[in-house]
Amino acid sequence: MAPTFPALVTVLALLVYAGVFMATARARARYGIQAPAVTGAPEFERTFRIQQNTVEQLIWFLPSLWLFAFYVSPSWAGLLGLVWIGGRIHYALSYYRDPEARGPGFITGCASAAVLLVGAFFGILVDLL
Amino acid sequence: MAPTFPALVTVLALLVYAGVFMATARARARYGIQAPAVTGAPEFERTFRIQQNTVEQLIWFLPSLWLFAFYVSPSWAGLLGLVWIGGRIHYALSYYRDPEARGPGFITGCASAAVLLVGAFFGILVDLL
Amino acid sequence: MAPTFPALVTVLALLVYAGVFMATARARARYGIQAPAVTGAPEFERTFRIQQNTVEQLIWFLPSLWLFAFYVSPSWAGLLGLVWIGGRIHYALSYYRDPEARGPGFITGCASAAVLLVGAFFGILVDLL
Repeated sequence: MAPTFPALVTVLALLVYAGVFMATARARARYGIQAPAVTGAPEFERTFRIQQNTVEQLIWFLPSLWLFAFYVSPSWAGLLGLVWIGGRIHYALSYYRDPEARGPGFITGCASAAVLLVGAFFGILVDLL
Repeated sequence: MAPTFPALVTVLALLVYAGVFMATARARARYGIQAPAVTGAPEFERTFRIQQNTVEQLIWFLPSLWLFAFYVSPSWAGLLGLVWIGGRIHYALSYYRDPEARGPGFITGCASAAVLLVGAFFGILVDLL
Repeated sequence: MAPTFPALVTVLALLVYAGVFMATARARARYGIQAPAVTGAPEFERTFRIQQNTVEQLIWFLPSLWLFAFYVSPSWAGLLGLVWIGGRIHYALSYYRDPEARGPGFITGCASAAVLLVGAFFGILVDLL
């Protein structure tokens, strides 16, 4: 059985992703963007970029979360993961209103993922020595 | 050692991905789309969107599959994963012929991933209580 | 605790990703590409495609690495993972100078990921029989 707190954080992060991904599907229908096009109404382009960016961030957040949980601390992994989730929700909501307002949420997400990745790196090095 | 049925399903899902990803590389060569362009011949744009969408789906399918396997049932995880794979193969083949025909495969994939994610969520909550 | 060599390789692969991802953010600022646009200066488009392609490759490399580590050998998984990392660094640097020079790094990355995926497949089949 995997540690439960990081597992819960993983589910919550994927639920945030499901939200931005359904927002893109809805925007595609509402603004009549025919597949495979990914450009058109600015509202669609914003939700699409929010989804893409969430994929680009999940790809390094999730492995970093789990390596930190295994090599450093499951509890701290979970707490840092909650910070990431808060940052990503702020990013999505602020980006949709105004792409230029995406900074704080984006930086919060990146910073917490960076702490997880660098922390995992040191935990692994300690384990090797 | 990880549970074998979800492991096998993971490999099969990645082989489907390898298929759509090689189709994009072939289409890029055949239709003379020079990197870094990702637009041009409609046939290329379709295979490219199929690949992108497969990434967008794998990113939440794989963690959901494994959390469901650990917190609910490896056998049911594997069976739901096979449904996902069937849906994604149907999605890729139908999308390539006609993007408007992508619905059933897409919905099958999303529905099975959603069952895995929500099931994992409940399994984790039960574990916490 | 996860096997340490594949864990270290995962961290190194994600640090490569962090590099290409920060290069894209820098290029977006330097060439004044306003979000959500992802087209404009060729230099930006190249870094953006390098990042996208790294996501497209990580999505099948990381699960293949870990399944190979569990079902075949953690040491060989780690060594093949180092080959992948070398290929991806070469890919990123050569693509940025000239997209047409991306071949050798790209093929090295794909080939090592393919060996990990196919090897994991056989390891799982042996485990099932």
